Amino acid sequence: MKVSDVGERALVELARKICKREPRIKVGIGDDAAAVDIDGKYIIATTDMLVAGTHFPRGTTAAQMGFKAVVVNLSDLAAMGAEPLGLIFSVGLPRNLDVMFVKEMLRGMDKAARSYNTYVVGGDLDESDEITIAGAAFGLARKGQLLTRSGAKPGDMIAVTGRLGAASAGLKILLGRIPTKGYGRLVKAQLGPRARVKEGQVLAKSGCVTSAIDITDGLAANAWQVSRMSKVKMILDYEKLPVDPVAEKFARSHGLDVDDFALFGGEDFELLFTVRPRGWGKVQRALKRVGATAALIGRAARGRGVFIQRGGKVRTLPDRGYEHFKP
Amino acid sequence: MKVSDVGERALVELARKICKREPRIKVGIGDDAAAVDIDGKYIIATTDMLVAGTHFPRGTTAAQMGFKAVVVNLSDLAAMGAEPLGLIFSVGLPRNLDVMFVKEMLRGMDKAARSYNTYVVGGDLDESDEITIAGAAFGLARKGQLLTRSGAKPGDMIAVTGRLGAASAGLKILLGRIPTKGYGRLVKAQLGPRARVKEGQVLAKSGCVTSAIDITDGLAANAWQVSRMSKVKMILDYEKLPVDPVAEKFARSHGLDVDDFALFGGEDFELLFTVRPRGWGKVQRALKRVGATAALIGRAARGRGVFIQRGGKVRTLPDRGYEHFKP
Repeated sequence: MKVSDVGERALVELARKICKREPRIKVGIGDDAAAVDIDGKYIIATTDMLVAGTHFPRGTTAAQMGFKAVVVNLSDLAAMGAEPLGLIFSVGLPRNLDVMFVKEMLRGMDKAARSYNTYVVGGDLDESDEITIAGAAFGLARKGQLLTRSGAKPGDMIAVTGRLGAASAGLKILLGRIPTKGYGRLVKAQLGPRARVKEGQVLAKSGCVTSAIDITDGLAANAWQVSRMSKVKMILDYEKLPVDPVAEKFARSHGLDVDDFALFGGEDFELLFTVRPRGWGKVQRALKRVGATAALIGRAARGRGVFIQRGGKVRTLPDRGYEHFKP
Repeated sequence: MKVSDVGERALVELARKICKREPRIKVGIGDDAAAVDIDGKYIIATTDMLVAGTHFPRGTTAAQMGFKAVVVNLSDLAAMGAEPLGLIFSVGLPRNLDVMFVKEMLRGMDKAARSYNTYVVGGDLDESDEITIAGAAFGLARKGQLLTRSGAKPGDMIAVTGRLGAASAGLKILLGRIPTKGYGRLVKAQLGPRARVKEGQVLAKSGCVTSAIDITDGLAANAWQVSRMSKVKMILDYEKLPVDPVAEKFARSHGLDVDDFALFGGEDFELLFTVRPRGWGKVQRALKRVGATAALIGRAARGRGVFIQRGGKVRTLPDRGYEHFKP
């Protein structure tokens, strides 16, 4: 059996089974990041690899690659509610690559890190056929303030930060070589995304947020992950989804289905989270203080699976989105 | 200019210049690992990438790859005197790879990690043309007990743990398809190396050790790094080098120069360290308590550069060893 036969999720499940744990590992394989207990605090650690051929559309600059490599890693810390402490990178480069590429990539990394008040503190350079950027971010979270994928409870409200669909609409534009006029925001969402680091910390401190995940794989796929790990049913309200209006306009004028961007497209790097029923007002005020917004998009209930309500009908939301090794 | 024109060290220097720092970054780019201050302790973080085509001789099993990926990362923590907290891995795999490979690789990782009382706590799986294992290890070090490459002082003694040359002699055997009979230990040093994690912690706690580095690039190249970063002259005594006797026998019987293994070969994963003049006895006793040994091999003096004393003559030791992107 080949890895493309089983897909990424089955391989993660395999890793969960094979790799042993100890009590001070509060969160192990399978969440956005790992959490290890060190006397009253948690060290949070995460890693994400970007391979030029797979992850970056043609024409992505070196600075954009470096920038995005930082953001994808910080987004995982954000989903845990952690404060970033630093980033380290293992970078594989072809021998005949221009040194200017490395310089620009490093500048993109440094710029992205500092925009979140954190830094690139170490790394490793290696030879490889393809440009490969493997980053790791580490941070701190306080006890009682750790966000995971497994804490959602029946009765919780479901919310998401920001807007949906811009990044994957941007990818469609870049891959299809569609003129970018009027769609600059979508392209920017794809090439220069932002992680919700401040928002994650605010949600963690509120004391009302029961689970969180970043929606890198798409809203549907990541909602399914919360449903599986929290053992709850998630019911989303289609009318309340904060779809990016430019993504909507782009979809309409090109005869595309906006749901492919907003529900099944990935890389928006927003946070999908659940809130205790009476905590929503507090969460909203806390987000406002850091200049952020979130929308209520549904509720958790007893049961399993992810459902979507639209025009009075409730249907299962397909568990599809971005998954490595899958066609 | 291409990356192969400038080499790995010049690229690391570039990264040091571009990436900003803040006061709580105690050790940044350029040491074995990074150290970030968190209220009285240091979080230590390091990353190392292994690319199948570059780092593993043909015939290396999946379990051996996983095992070694853990060891190279823990060796960097060891060189800082840190206690490991966990490991995370970003792994790039070709789509048509057999799932059994992934299973065996994970088993190798888990086995290696647990043999040091630590664990694989997270990761990321991606598609790539070549098998690529990017690991990151993180750990803790106490204040006043952090080992770096920059603390050696004139007058210090120079020492190294274990024996030299086995791993690169093993590589020679594997690459040259030389019969392994009688040389099993050399092949094992290459395919199933050990990191000096306990030793690093013991050295850090002794209070007498002023600098440390792991000798992944070879004794000569890593001694040059300590010399540059500590701004001292290092004078090694050729007669005192603890050359592996099997590596010596192998070199002799194949007409090879054992110095290529013991001085310029890499991947021995031993620790090269400097000790305050009166601390040697204490360090030796402390190492003995954990079943380890080290040999005195020279002394640090005012000045710069690395020299080797042999038969009454002192010569400059060439600054060569393993460096990526260099021929």
